[in-house]
Amino acid sequence: MEITVTSGKKITAFPNASLLESLKKAGIYLTSSCGGKGTCGKCKVIVRSGQAVSKSKMKLSKEEIDRGYVLACKTYPSGDLLIDIPKESMLIVEGKVVTGKSKDLLALLNSTGAGLDPLTSRIVIELPPPTLDDNISDLERLRRELLSQGMACLRVPFRFLPDLAKTIREEKWTITLSTIHTEDCEEIIRISSGDKKLPQYGAAIDIGTTTIVVFLVDLVTGKLIDVASTYNSQIRYGDDVITRIVHATEHNKLKELNDAVISDINTLLSVIIKNHHIDIESIDCLVFAGNTTMTHLFLGLDPAAIREEPYIPTANTFPLSFAGELGIGVNPNIPIYAFPCVASYVGGDIVSGILAAQLHKKQELSIFIDIGTNGEIVIGNSEWLVSAACSAGPCFEGSGMKCGMRATEGAIEGVTINRDTLEVDIKVIGEGVRPVGICGSGMIDVIAEMFFAGIIDQKGKLQEVVSGRVRKGEDGLEFVVYSGEGRDLVLTEPDIENIVRAKAAIYAGFSTLLKEVGFTFNDIEKIYIAGGFGKFLDIEKAIMIGMLPELPKDRFTYMGNTSVTGAYLCLLSRDLRTEAEEIAKKMTYLELSVSRSFMDEYMSGLFIPHTNIDAFPGVKKLMER
Amino acid sequence: MEITVTSGKKITAFPNASLLESLKKAGIYLTSSCGGKGTCGKCKVIVRSGQAVSKSKMKLSKEEIDRGYVLACKTYPSGDLLIDIPKESMLIVEGKVVTGKSKDLLALLNSTGAGLDPLTSRIVIELPPPTLDDNISDLERLRRELLSQGMACLRVPFRFLPDLAKTIREEKWTITLSTIHTEDCEEIIRISSGDKKLPQYGAAIDIGTTTIVVFLVDLVTGKLIDVASTYNSQIRYGDDVITRIVHATEHNKLKELNDAVISDINTLLSVIIKNHHIDIESIDCLVFAGNTTMTHLFLGLDPAAIREEPYIPTANTFPLSFAGELGIGVNPNIPIYAFPCVASYVGGDIVSGILAAQLHKKQELSIFIDIGTNGEIVIGNSEWLVSAACSAGPCFEGSGMKCGMRATEGAIEGVTINRDTLEVDIKVIGEGVRPVGICGSGMIDVIAEMFFAGIIDQKGKLQEVVSGRVRKGEDGLEFVVYSGEGRDLVLTEPDIENIVRAKAAIYAGFSTLLKEVGFTFNDIEKIYIAGGFGKFLDIEKAIMIGMLPELPKDRFTYMGNTSVTGAYLCLLSRDLRTEAEEIAKKMTYLELSVSRSFMDEYMSGLFIPHTNIDAFPGVKKLMER
Repeated sequence: MEITVTSGKKITAFPNASLLESLKKAGIYLTSSCGGKGTCGKCKVIVRSGQAVSKSKMKLSKEEIDRGYVLACKTYPSGDLLIDIPKESMLIVEGKVVTGKSKDLLALLNSTGAGLDPLTSRIVIELPPPTLDDNISDLERLRRELLSQGMACLRVPFRFLPDLAKTIREEKWTITLSTIHTEDCEEIIRISSGDKKLPQYGAAIDIGTTTIVVFLVDLVTGKLIDVASTYNSQIRYGDDVITRIVHATEHNKLKELNDAVISDINTLLSVIIKNHHIDIESIDCLVFAGNTTMTHLFLGLDPAAIREEPYIPTANTFPLSFAGELGIGVNPNIPIYAFPCVASYVGGDIVSGILAAQLHKKQELSIFIDIGTNGEIVIGNSEWLVSAACSAGPCFEGSGMKCGMRATEGAIEGVTINRDTLEVDIKVIGEGVRPVGICGSGMIDVIAEMFFAGIIDQKGKLQEVVSGRVRKGEDGLEFVVYSGEGRDLVLTEPDIENIVRAKAAIYAGFSTLLKEVGFTFNDIEKIYIAGGFGKFLDIEKAIMIGMLPELPKDRFTYMGNTSVTGAYLCLLSRDLRTEAEEIAKKMTYLELSVSRSFMDEYMSGLFIPHTNIDAFPGVKKLMER
Repeated sequence: MEITVTSGKKITAFPNASLLESLKKAGIYLTSSCGGKGTCGKCKVIVRSGQAVSKSKMKLSKEEIDRGYVLACKTYPSGDLLIDIPKESMLIVEGKVVTGKSKDLLALLNSTGAGLDPLTSRIVIELPPPTLDDNISDLERLRRELLSQGMACLRVPFRFLPDLAKTIREEKWTITLSTIHTEDCEEIIRISSGDKKLPQYGAAIDIGTTTIVVFLVDLVTGKLIDVASTYNSQIRYGDDVITRIVHATEHNKLKELNDAVISDINTLLSVIIKNHHIDIESIDCLVFAGNTTMTHLFLGLDPAAIREEPYIPTANTFPLSFAGELGIGVNPNIPIYAFPCVASYVGGDIVSGILAAQLHKKQELSIFIDIGTNGEIVIGNSEWLVSAACSAGPCFEGSGMKCGMRATEGAIEGVTINRDTLEVDIKVIGEGVRPVGICGSGMIDVIAEMFFAGIIDQKGKLQEVVSGRVRKGEDGLEFVVYSGEGRDLVLTEPDIENIVRAKAAIYAGFSTLLKEVGFTFNDIEKIYIAGGFGKFLDIEKAIMIGMLPELPKDRFTYMGNTSVTGAYLCLLSRDLRTEAEEIAKKMTYLELSVSRSFMDEYMSGLFIPHTNIDAFPGVKKLMER
């Protein structure tokens, strides 16, 4: 049996294999947060012709079923098939679009003043063969050669001894060492045969609660080779870190969560190296940043105490681990550097973000906010840093939203609604691309635009009488953002409530933290915003809905995914790794959940833009118009 | 089915299990160099009554078969049995006889001036439980506590993180750490629950080509708990290091050799801990010394290049390894310290011997010789050390000799032959014990006594006409040393040739090395002799046969097994480990095999006492009488 994809590719349908599995074997990866259990509804494909048996239609709407949508993980071909894979079902590999991003990253690295000094190095060594007069052991010979080349200290873990004699003789006394600098010594992490200096790659990884992003980086040039991202498969066990910890603790399923994220990263790495015809042995090191819970789950550390007062992680700084210890599908001796965390609810992703924003080096008082599934806020300057966390939920990353998606090709990232005609204008990521979902920035726009067009009220309730685009859906009222071929893209009332709660939490975080450290919004000279919004976030609209404080627009800088950016920086620079460790050490943490002020602020934020409208004079003026 | 041992013990005969296996399951360990293949003939037992099927009688004499001897590994009971286990078949555990040895060892340790500072330490820590105001991570809490107690630096390998949170909470914030001092830092090697400070044991191990000896030592008091020893099961693959390397290299059987020695050590350890009711988790560290080949085979390192010119080992100094890496049956995180080696044919056992003799601290010119399967000689003082090696063969350890055995209970260790009556008087190890074999010192005595009684000539040929004890045996003429119940104990002509070759090699080593460094025997103020001769070695008789040079008797000191003694010292003292490393670094190595002088000396030594009788004026005088 054969499966033809409308893009033109023909693949083999393996017997008794689901469509998802056959596609995977052919190198076509679909998002599949539930791991093929038919529960996440992410691996939708459209059967254009041919016969197939679908064992579950869970998460598919009537409309979708009518149009031929099936879940690839639950569909088994019974003959040749012609299928269409919607963009939102594809696991995202950016491919050729990364050139610009690569230049920006290199420019950022250069701007820090740090040189290119990656986590691991390779050294090719030619050893003088032994003679009766020079008969020191192989290991001493190696050490003598390296010290004579200026290395101060060499550490050789026992595991490299068994094959050493054979390797250097088979390779006629020329071998390549991979080393990592630890504790003022170079430690061998790999011994390869012959001259294997090039190529050398490393991966910078952001492990988000909702999204996982992998950068493959050339360690010699610092160039970004490719970017791949996917939803964190742990989503099947819950949307936020708390439900994941509960799953790990009360159901004793830490291993399940650990396996899920390891398998996601393995998939992303294998897709990139396949696309670029890269030998897996060329990957020399991994650096990752994640919040404290994600870091624990990735490293297989018990997260139970993170959830219970007084909220204690196993560690905030982590010893180096190795791929073989964690089950990462690269050479087992490859080291994995974990970004240091600050506290149970401010993790390595935030340390990474501060490093990317270079906030820790700035004189002026600044705020950094990372809007992910958790919202983390840091205030400070080169002297001090105080952080806090608030739970925003995964809505801005497209998770838990009817037509949500990440900020990748096909996502509606911008929306305008004509105040008079109520006509909707959309902006889609990618050139000439059909919209397939709405990402975080698009959602902020829709809310702001609907509010000023009178389609929702201050509580976010849809006004059915106002617009023909408001209709009854499966989950109550919904607003049709886009209607075309395929399914309509809508924002439902539960979606809107999600966003309103999220923006209320973020604003409450801002204002409570400021109050705690004795400042007001006007003292803040810079606000750095990070998050998975893609290239574009309309600051004004974020202010309009009351998510961001009303300050002059030039004080805001939108930075995208700073967690992976910081991981990229540390992959390439020892100095910046030291800086990251200093940031983590310096940053203090305020627990907002015990603050009554936070709850009050949160409740006030459940209106658009805010109960205290005077905090938003510009928005007030607009509303009065 | 039941097996009754004449000592009184009753054990179960397991179906389809050999006698050897059933005895092992009941905790009765027999020597079995071939691992139960029926080829070494070491696991002999006597069936007194009952029925059993013996599948092989290899290595048993007609006389033995007539007396009911069987190979336990090839014998399968078909009903209840009554058996007798000869002492020579028992794997040796010294049990209660170690008290005196323990005192001597402690006295030696004290005499070096080194304090008791074992390879690993345990620290019990009570952590203050976290609060909202003191909410650092578990790891940081541990580190803070240890640093506040004065520890300078703590290294925590990644593998200890996954269980850390659970362990400290289950144990209500009191845990026990085992640590090892490496690179100016304390590294965690084990985290145990609760207060587990006592007891703590370590093992000091001598891995000889022929014999393996294990000391179990109390790390807190330095007391020797017990000693166990056995033949190195690698013997089944060849008697000397060269045939073992050939087996590992040409037959690609490194793993077989590695498994053999690991299994021997596991057996010895398990026997001791069983006898003393010791929890395996109380064993915290292992230190071993062995020649360079034995060290390689134990660590699983490829020994091929040791055998080929220019004779290169993989390493002479070894990174710490862990029990789990090597398959030692203690806690997998237990560190194993390998004695540093000097060159391919002067290994850690010799460095250990020099440390035990403290030769490296002496002003006077001294010689150290270790007579094992290899004979290694070191000459020097506190300024310099030069070493060389010569192959003696395993005869002095009882291997390859018809009635040979190690110097353990039941061994004939001393022999006198009345020059007039030719009556033989023997001295046996153990009180009131029936002799069961002849150990190295006994063999030297027999040769010397036979020579002066005229029973052998200068070439070592037996003179049938002289003594009624000379008779024809299976291997030609033989001399009956002891005749009693059980089998007769004899020395055959091939046995005598073995000993003559061995003593010739040792003397040639002495004299060639001296010549090379420009000294004569008279310059030597002290000669330290090491080897598995037990408590007793008659220096005069060793001179008589021309094995040792003729010097005043008070210049000789017999030291027993110095390899395991040095291992004991390093198990208990960091200073002495540093000294051992300095000895290895300081010692130079002379390759005698390329010296023509050595061959000439060896040929001259094939006479008793020597072709150059003038080198032995005292012996000459005796001969003239």
